[in-house]
Amino acid sequence: MEVAALLTSAGINIAVCVTLFSIYSVLRKQPSNFTVYFGRRVASKRSKNVNFCLERFVPTPSWILKAWETTEDEILAIGGLDAVVFVRILVFSLRVFSIAAAVCLFLVLPVNYHGKDRLHKDIPLESMDVFTIANVQQHSEWLWAHCLALYVITFSACSLLFFEYKSIANLRTLHIIGAPPSPSLFTILVRSVPWSPEESYCETVKKFFSSYHASTYLSHQIIYKCGTVQKMKDDAEHVFRVLKDGTMENTSKPIFTHCCSCGGNANSFQMINIERNSALESTTNTSSDLDMRKKECAAAFVFFKSRYAALLASKILQSSNPMLWVTDIAPEPQDVYWSNICIPYRQLWIRKIATLIASIAFMLVFLLPVTFVQGLTQLDKLQKMFPFLTEILKSKMVNQMVTGYLPSLILVLFLFAVPPMMMLFSSLEGCISRSGRKKSACYKVLYFLIWNVFFVNVFTGSVISQLSVFSSVADLPVQLAKAVPSQATFFTTYIFTSGWASLGCEIMQIYPLLCNFIQRLLKLNDDSQNGTQNFPYHTEVPRILLFGFLGFTNAILAPIMLPFLIIYFFLAYLVYRNQFLNVYVAKYDSGGQYWPIVHNTTVFSLIFAQIIALGVFGVKHSPVASGFTFPLVVGTFLFHQYCRQRFLPSFKSNSAQTAIDMDRRDEESGKLREIHQHLHSAYCQYGLLHDPDLPRCFSHCDPDEEDAQFSPQRSLKGKEILKKEKSGSFHRTSSTKAVVLGGM
Amino acid sequence: MEVAALLTSAGINIAVCVTLFSIYSVLRKQPSNFTVYFGRRVASKRSKNVNFCLERFVPTPSWILKAWETTEDEILAIGGLDAVVFVRILVFSLRVFSIAAAVCLFLVLPVNYHGKDRLHKDIPLESMDVFTIANVQQHSEWLWAHCLALYVITFSACSLLFFEYKSIANLRTLHIIGAPPSPSLFTILVRSVPWSPEESYCETVKKFFSSYHASTYLSHQIIYKCGTVQKMKDDAEHVFRVLKDGTMENTSKPIFTHCCSCGGNANSFQMINIERNSALESTTNTSSDLDMRKKECAAAFVFFKSRYAALLASKILQSSNPMLWVTDIAPEPQDVYWSNICIPYRQLWIRKIATLIASIAFMLVFLLPVTFVQGLTQLDKLQKMFPFLTEILKSKMVNQMVTGYLPSLILVLFLFAVPPMMMLFSSLEGCISRSGRKKSACYKVLYFLIWNVFFVNVFTGSVISQLSVFSSVADLPVQLAKAVPSQATFFTTYIFTSGWASLGCEIMQIYPLLCNFIQRLLKLNDDSQNGTQNFPYHTEVPRILLFGFLGFTNAILAPIMLPFLIIYFFLAYLVYRNQFLNVYVAKYDSGGQYWPIVHNTTVFSLIFAQIIALGVFGVKHSPVASGFTFPLVVGTFLFHQYCRQRFLPSFKSNSAQTAIDMDRRDEESGKLREIHQHLHSAYCQYGLLHDPDLPRCFSHCDPDEEDAQFSPQRSLKGKEILKKEKSGSFHRTSSTKAVVLGGM
Repeated sequence: MEVAALLTSAGINIAVCVTLFSIYSVLRKQPSNFTVYFGRRVASKRSKNVNFCLERFVPTPSWILKAWETTEDEILAIGGLDAVVFVRILVFSLRVFSIAAAVCLFLVLPVNYHGKDRLHKDIPLESMDVFTIANVQQHSEWLWAHCLALYVITFSACSLLFFEYKSIANLRTLHIIGAPPSPSLFTILVRSVPWSPEESYCETVKKFFSSYHASTYLSHQIIYKCGTVQKMKDDAEHVFRVLKDGTMENTSKPIFTHCCSCGGNANSFQMINIERNSALESTTNTSSDLDMRKKECAAAFVFFKSRYAALLASKILQSSNPMLWVTDIAPEPQDVYWSNICIPYRQLWIRKIATLIASIAFMLVFLLPVTFVQGLTQLDKLQKMFPFLTEILKSKMVNQMVTGYLPSLILVLFLFAVPPMMMLFSSLEGCISRSGRKKSACYKVLYFLIWNVFFVNVFTGSVISQLSVFSSVADLPVQLAKAVPSQATFFTTYIFTSGWASLGCEIMQIYPLLCNFIQRLLKLNDDSQNGTQNFPYHTEVPRILLFGFLGFTNAILAPIMLPFLIIYFFLAYLVYRNQFLNVYVAKYDSGGQYWPIVHNTTVFSLIFAQIIALGVFGVKHSPVASGFTFPLVVGTFLFHQYCRQRFLPSFKSNSAQTAIDMDRRDEESGKLREIHQHLHSAYCQYGLLHDPDLPRCFSHCDPDEEDAQFSPQRSLKGKEILKKEKSGSFHRTSSTKAVVLGGM
Repeated sequence: MEVAALLTSAGINIAVCVTLFSIYSVLRKQPSNFTVYFGRRVASKRSKNVNFCLERFVPTPSWILKAWETTEDEILAIGGLDAVVFVRILVFSLRVFSIAAAVCLFLVLPVNYHGKDRLHKDIPLESMDVFTIANVQQHSEWLWAHCLALYVITFSACSLLFFEYKSIANLRTLHIIGAPPSPSLFTILVRSVPWSPEESYCETVKKFFSSYHASTYLSHQIIYKCGTVQKMKDDAEHVFRVLKDGTMENTSKPIFTHCCSCGGNANSFQMINIERNSALESTTNTSSDLDMRKKECAAAFVFFKSRYAALLASKILQSSNPMLWVTDIAPEPQDVYWSNICIPYRQLWIRKIATLIASIAFMLVFLLPVTFVQGLTQLDKLQKMFPFLTEILKSKMVNQMVTGYLPSLILVLFLFAVPPMMMLFSSLEGCISRSGRKKSACYKVLYFLIWNVFFVNVFTGSVISQLSVFSSVADLPVQLAKAVPSQATFFTTYIFTSGWASLGCEIMQIYPLLCNFIQRLLKLNDDSQNGTQNFPYHTEVPRILLFGFLGFTNAILAPIMLPFLIIYFFLAYLVYRNQFLNVYVAKYDSGGQYWPIVHNTTVFSLIFAQIIALGVFGVKHSPVASGFTFPLVVGTFLFHQYCRQRFLPSFKSNSAQTAIDMDRRDEESGKLREIHQHLHSAYCQYGLLHDPDLPRCFSHCDPDEEDAQFSPQRSLKGKEILKKEKSGSFHRTSSTKAVVLGGM
């Protein structure tokens, strides 16, 4: 590829981006698109009144200004800590690649360009290869420039990483301290409660915690089975009873009347308890008690009187059998992934291994269907199979379309299936929180992208040749050194087509826009809040990290890529800030857990770049440069180990100091009692006993769109129960509220 | 090698063993050898009175009977949990290899022997290769026998492993519950106390724990710097002051007067505190206070009122900076490795990486000097270098000695250097306990042995060919399949020479016996307790595991090895039980921490054996057998993961339930107050303030021989201080006891 061609390609993509951004700036001003482009504001009920005027149809850069001017505190307030971390990734990338570009463009690029004694053409007609390290002669003494650039990049990246890690760890602590009291800090999730023939799980939990954590235990809430299997079993039992008793009356009692109906031994709830007991006596009988026991999971939320007590209980091995009484700090109420909490704890290890194997298999065989289709699109075969196509395919344009465009279209379509697939794997893995599931999916998508974009393009070929990469580990650096520089042009165009274009698509929100348009066309206006969705960290974080990976690995090999990368990061910075401000709603937050992923990936990218450089210096027969690069690899590894030690533990767990300080502050201000009362209504598994005093119950259990996608049984079940409730088939006792409030 | 030769070799070795055992049974009856063969009993002051009679000089099997009849409870009482675990390793090996031998001798061996249609010679003249899998034809249908045997071995090993793990985990819990109250359960070790310019570490620790653990904190004891560097610095300061002041008076005050002199805020010690304070005021002044601050380490033992509180404090992240206030449960007082406790916590990660790299390097280059010497012993080179040798080397016997015996002698001598070397690495690594150090050394010796005995023999060659094994991972099973069966004879003789012979040496205690003999010859009788030593788990556990590894990998390939292996394990069972009963003293105990090593190694051996079998079945072109072996590998891996999940956590930490139950028991029986009082004198860093009321202080700090080997500065320092004390140069205030007892 020539420079002119590359610049043309860049120009076209820039034009596309500018067009998309302009269209966006017009579309966002149309009131009908508010739900698409201002989902967050619509969700928080702050809709604008916009009158018809000409200005509405003129593209304006106001959104850019707005996105630029927003402070980090605003982002934190709107999008939570995860949004701040995401923006920090972009800022970090901008900084480190600006330094890299400065060094590489002014030092490495001239060395590459003048690497061989040859007659240079005009720059626009020059081949791209002239600008890569492939143009440097063997035994060249100028390779110190590449080595120096590598040092500068590594040192700047490591120091920036260190300060970012430190600052985010601090921010995390401050965020926890500064945020309003979260019920999750007072709550632990207990799984694998031992089964006993005499007692229900509920009683077992109560007995255990009142015995071993008497001074700090507040109350607990048992978790009930849900999911498709349970639904089917319920239905079968229902039918069985109908056939047996000839009446439906004693089966129509929903399981929720008993929900959360035990464990209330906190003093402040004694009064309500009494009411509850009398209410229960009047509504329950022995057979339904047995029913309830069958529907209990071996899991419960246990509430403690202080954050410190909950932290302690979550970190300690409770029983001498580590498979019983497994404790974890509970996720935020809106972050709980209910359908996974019921999974027996003993299954988790095998689920993790199975999903790991499935993900790796998916990663490796992903290209199989694509190559299969590519084989099909060889026209002669197609024509043999479908003779009627012969006429159509005679046209040159159709021919080009089918052979050139169809395979990549299919590849892109398959790529679209990757994040949902990985999300499904993460759901099956058994994560107890939505944020945990997303984080796990983020890892999987990241590995997938790096493998299938980088490695498969570098070692173009089938699954067999993919695997053969590992059969000779020692030769890997040399193989990479030969393959990577020649693919630099492809990666540069990849930045245009996948990077810039994806930002355009992101800001245009094409799919929601279409949905909205069709809805308006068909006048289906009842689902107006469809657009509010959580930020897709599991697709966007890996994308950014992939570009970072490409940047680091190509920085000294083909520095011409760096300016385009900086443009990408800058646009991304504007676009994503705008999206955080306007589109996405932060329903749950992982508390900055994405930063360790970013850190690890960046260090991996750096070490990988250094190993490729080692290979290149080896191929170019420059022992001095190789000799200087080796300590850099060791140094980067040591830096990584130090950071693991220094920062990672504080991302895994709160510190005692923080928890105690927060407890003291609340105790002094007298808030603790109020928090305890709120605790009991915080976690609501079904969220369907609608009560004006329990507004939070509903909001927690509102399934967001991605959940509807992967756990249809839950939303189905929810809808069905809602219908039942509407039709009045629930026996609502007068003390339902007491049952819910006091029972926990 | 022929069968007759193998049996001859076995016979010779058996004769050697029987002779050694007989000599032992005579020598042990001689009163002069009591310190060698009854070190434990001598240490516990139960010496026998034996009169001169003929019986003393007749070999008897009484010791065998005694060793056989001893129950596990006795072993537990005498040698601690580690001894029980060690005996269990032998019992497990005996069981699993009995099953393996039964299957392999009656099923696999006939298949191997009749594998090829050939004329068999008389069995004594038959080559050993006829009994290995190498004798089975390609495409043979009889390979299912090997596959079946592999299944039987794997299933029996896994089920035995599971029940052993379970039983040892239970035993561990029972041992903790049943043992007399251990101070370590009430104590945590805090490292990386933050430095502040205003306060001493002592005050900082007191402030932190009285603030954040007010209800459970009892007191603390700061740790003072020790070691060579500190000694040198002290000396330099001493000289400096002598030169400056012209007098030695103000420097002769030992640092111990202030030792443990703060933190006593427990109510029960208020009275003594007052006494202490007045005593301190009279003996300290500002300049010595500053001295003390300089000598303080950023580490302390912190005592808690209950086991549960100590457990909690040790498991929780204390500060939001994970590099500050690092807490661990404290080792037993006699288990503390004092010189490592002072190592700054920030150094530990780099020390760990450095020792890891050093151990790997040592492992890989270990054979370099040996091959170098082997090169030298080629006679022509030697003769060229030293012409005067020509005459000597003309003798055939000398010639054979030098070429045949010298290299293996050098190898054995180098092998003797391995355990101390690994122990040194483990010391440098920074383990805080002696048992931890021994466990770490055990891992290192194990890897070393498996690498240098198995791999280097299988892939005979230099470092380069060692490393090239890893360059083509995919070919490894096939390479192993070709190499391992041909080495089966070597491994069988290795069992005779290294296994059986080592047991003879072990029971004879040759080195202590010689020392004792020389001492008696020179009439140096003052060091009568020299012989009491801890059991060398770091050399014996790896040895047993290596034989297990050889057994598993060769079981189906060369089953003729198994009977000899069973004899080894049986002899080892008798010998080691005898040694536990009579020779070794259990000064410290890791609490069964060796079992996870055993479990992991056995599972590794199994999987390795299965992979070799896969390779063999591949080489023999038996896809069915390969197909059946593959699920076995997966199943064994899953079994390992399950066991990790099920048992490992209870080896890492006590459970809350256990700790609370023990606390309650002590509280109900009123023992808790007594325990609290004992706590303050439990950990004594120097152990030199000899006081009749503090007998334990001395026993804790008694350096055992292996410590003298690796931390000469400690014992030197101890001796020096002891000398000082004897010469009366200490200022002993009247309230020394109060300082020590109340100060902590």
